[in-house]
Amino acid sequence: MRLRTGCNLKFEIATPTPFILMLRPRSGSQQWVEQQEYEIDPGTPVYEFTDDYGNLCQRLTAPCGMFSITTSSVVVTSDYTDEAYGAEFVEIQNLPDSVLSYLLPSRYCESDCFNELAVSITQGEILGYNQVAAITNWLRSNIKYIPGSNNEPLSAIQVNTNGYGVCRDLAHLGIALCRSLSIPARIVVGYLYNLQPMDMHAWFEAYVGNRWYTFDATQMATTGGYVILGLGKDAADVAVFNQFGPSVFPIDQQVWVEKVE
Amino acid sequence: MRLRTGCNLKFEIATPTPFILMLRPRSGSQQWVEQQEYEIDPGTPVYEFTDDYGNLCQRLTAPCGMFSITTSSVVVTSDYTDEAYGAEFVEIQNLPDSVLSYLLPSRYCESDCFNELAVSITQGEILGYNQVAAITNWLRSNIKYIPGSNNEPLSAIQVNTNGYGVCRDLAHLGIALCRSLSIPARIVVGYLYNLQPMDMHAWFEAYVGNRWYTFDATQMATTGGYVILGLGKDAADVAVFNQFGPSVFPIDQQVWVEKVE
Amino acid sequence: MRLRTGCNLKFEIATPTPFILMLRPRSGSQQWVEQQEYEIDPGTPVYEFTDDYGNLCQRLTAPCGMFSITTSSVVVTSDYTDEAYGAEFVEIQNLPDSVLSYLLPSRYCESDCFNELAVSITQGEILGYNQVAAITNWLRSNIKYIPGSNNEPLSAIQVNTNGYGVCRDLAHLGIALCRSLSIPARIVVGYLYNLQPMDMHAWFEAYVGNRWYTFDATQMATTGGYVILGLGKDAADVAVFNQFGPSVFPIDQQVWVEKVE
Amino acid sequence: MRLRTGCNLKFEIATPTPFILMLRPRSGSQQWVEQQEYEIDPGTPVYEFTDDYGNLCQRLTAPCGMFSITTSSVVVTSDYTDEAYGAEFVEIQNLPDSVLSYLLPSRYCESDCFNELAVSITQGEILGYNQVAAITNWLRSNIKYIPGSNNEPLSAIQVNTNGYGVCRDLAHLGIALCRSLSIPARIVVGYLYNLQPMDMHAWFEAYVGNRWYTFDATQMATTGGYVILGLGKDAADVAVFNQFGPSVFPIDQQVWVEKVE
Repeated sequence: MRLRTGCNLKFEIATPTPFILMLRPRSGSQQWVEQQEYEIDPGTPVYEFTDDYGNLCQRLTAPCGMFSITTSSVVVTSDYTDEAYGAEFVEIQNLPDSVLSYLLPSRYCESDCFNELAVSITQGEILGYNQVAAITNWLRSNIKYIPGSNNEPLSAIQVNTNGYGVCRDLAHLGIALCRSLSIPARIVVGYLYNLQPMDMHAWFEAYVGNRWYTFDATQMATTGGYVILGLGKDAADVAVFNQFGPSVFPIDQQVWVEKVE
Repeated sequence: MRLRTGCNLKFEIATPTPFILMLRPRSGSQQWVEQQEYEIDPGTPVYEFTDDYGNLCQRLTAPCGMFSITTSSVVVTSDYTDEAYGAEFVEIQNLPDSVLSYLLPSRYCESDCFNELAVSITQGEILGYNQVAAITNWLRSNIKYIPGSNNEPLSAIQVNTNGYGVCRDLAHLGIALCRSLSIPARIVVGYLYNLQPMDMHAWFEAYVGNRWYTFDATQMATTGGYVILGLGKDAADVAVFNQFGPSVFPIDQQVWVEKVE
Repeated sequence: MRLRTGCNLKFEIATPTPFILMLRPRSGSQQWVEQQEYEIDPGTPVYEFTDDYGNLCQRLTAPCGMFSITTSSVVVTSDYTDEAYGAEFVEIQNLPDSVLSYLLPSRYCESDCFNELAVSITQGEILGYNQVAAITNWLRSNIKYIPGSNNEPLSAIQVNTNGYGVCRDLAHLGIALCRSLSIPARIVVGYLYNLQPMDMHAWFEAYVGNRWYTFDATQMATTGGYVILGLGKDAADVAVFNQFGPSVFPIDQQVWVEKVE
Repeated sequence: MRLRTGCNLKFEIATPTPFILMLRPRSGSQQWVEQQEYEIDPGTPVYEFTDDYGNLCQRLTAPCGMFSITTSSVVVTSDYTDEAYGAEFVEIQNLPDSVLSYLLPSRYCESDCFNELAVSITQGEILGYNQVAAITNWLRSNIKYIPGSNNEPLSAIQVNTNGYGVCRDLAHLGIALCRSLSIPARIVVGYLYNLQPMDMHAWFEAYVGNRWYTFDATQMATTGGYVILGLGKDAADVAVFNQFGPSVFPIDQQVWVEKVE
């Protein structure tokens, strides 16, 4: 499907503020970017680089006063998300080098603390895809998805204690559970067609059957229409905007995802 | 300055043909991409990756029949090209690791054969920027820039023998001369505002005074308005389209560069 | 100084166990490896790769029974550690791209929780090196360095609560405090000459004055004699041995560091 | 088999001379380095980095006077070289991104000029491994392997014209022929057990059947006992010593490869 996705972020800046943004989608194996616009108002020097995960990052220093960022893209992405019940667990010794670091615990995914829970959730499952599907279903049943319930990312331990969280938080718990079973897992941020309520979104991917598969515990059924902005170990790596110095929050934020012909 | 650049390439494909294209400009330290469009007709699966030089490359297999690629971008780039007479030669032992490979000879830049000529051209010059400027001036006086004079890249030796070449060929000779003096040099392909006649363009960069500087022997005076599509050791690395199998040439090719407000 | 460093790790393996080891020092800007030996007994296929941080990692699957790894190296390293009181804080917008990820919180360095403490510790200090020196001194006075006090890494929050930890744990708190002030910081593991009691060691580096400087809160005075095995965001990235499946601990571990002529 | 390999290079340096050396073997999927020594006399600051191909490179400036480099390693490598008649040609669109640049022409492998010859040599062969085997046999029959016949690398065109060359030169022609058939190919330098006369060695690898295979036209039969020092597109990338400024040649060079238990 062909989607027009975008966002507008408005800030009121009191003191010149360095930002690192991750708002430009890249073409890759999962999506093709046909059109793209990136507007910064007032015009400000921007420098773009590629981070360790291959994400495009935009560096700038926002000047004082009203500051607005608008990006818009037309992206071709899949109508559905691949499912692969039965896809096998990959033994550690057979994992590609590039995937190994997604086994390690990270800021918001304390996978070293979740082995017991993960084993109990996945009991009786065939090793691999089915374990991750069981984890996703467990999240759907046990952790309430409450959009807007917090601003700061929750770690897997906190989400599991609270029993609720935003999309990013559910992803953290899913990732921690996978890694605790030696299944590489990573977070993805971007857009989702038909998300309710519309906003930036986050989900996760797990590496089984020799490739990455998409999982999203916030959606009742597997669906397509995902557009990727960035990926990494957890929300620490993939803030769509990272801002340094005294905290600045958007005074307005619009997000849109529409089908186009 | 803000430029709308783009091209349209049309092919008549007789047998399914793999292509690697380098037609999407990237934002970086020298330019900022505000808008971008990439259209392939008929629609074909495309996969984009980043090559060893950081260039975005698009892989696809063109189906039989008429095949057209159109890309268009709005890019903010500098009004002028930095000049730095006096910028110093960097001793080999002080060059950054990432720059060392641009000292080596390459397919079209046989720098191992040009030390004598380079020494004679740069006699009496302060080591560094001034040497490269002298090389560029020598190219302007001694090698005729004849757009369209050949399709296949000429190597530095061939250009020097022929006494003429297209933009790419002049760049090859400039690069070979620089490298033969232990000055790192690389080719850049892209667009240039006001190029006569309008076409894709190629120029070169040399590393002196601890950064890369732009040189273009096809232009009488230093100017701005450059938009970068890719860079590498020579034309072998930065074909804007690389096609495999029986040769296919565009039956039509349009290139445009316009100022926008 | 020229140091012979090495270790011997002995395991009793009950079930074939995948390991990722980080026991081969690399030559780099801080050290030169003159000799190196790496012995695995019984002989087992090993595959070495370079991780995202440039560390050499050895992958193998340990067979059942006694399993022993011995590495030994002669490394030339500095007699002293550079100090640079007054070296300046680098504004975020001026940091090199490659350093930015060391500003982010990580598994054991929850820098997002330490700004208040870091500000109070560094009050009145010149921004940059002096802040990191103040943090290191604060660690020396406030966190007891107790070798062997725990096996699993403690996070910065845990160390701060407990008031004690091993070398790695003190490094975690130092790193979290630096990052909370927007100073990039990373962990280093390796060997230290004259360490009491002798063991593997961990310390940290902070990026100020446009380069990395070494800090070690476990030592009363700045000293030299450091040999690096690996570096990363925190202990999650730089386990000298990472083992998967049911936990296996060394039944014997010898570490040595001696001066050689 | 377990080999002790090494070399000693002696220079008489008239003016301080920057060197880039590639004399430290790395462990990888094809070899495991058990012991390694690297001695520079007189002692000189050395800095080691990893180049774009993953080779370890040592940078130093040789002081005036006698200058000697000795390296020695014990390396475990295969007793034989894998053969795979029938291993299939990989279509361009299915090649991994990381392999694509080995299709391009390079300084000493003008693959753009060899399609006709390559087609005639491989007529009737199954596409893939068998084509490369046919090319290797053709080299054995048509190009004389004359150790020591030249100092400077010959390009594929020159070797084909001359009808003879050293190991490196034969590899260049083999690589150019492979690439002209859209088979990725690269040069490897290192040591070979039982090489007559003993010296540094060079051979090539081709990518067919989804992996790299070893080919060596200087040896009548496929054999094992290869130890890799570096790999790249051609000899320009993998000089075991690259020296800048007025030419300096070793006044003495010893190379050894012995079996050890």
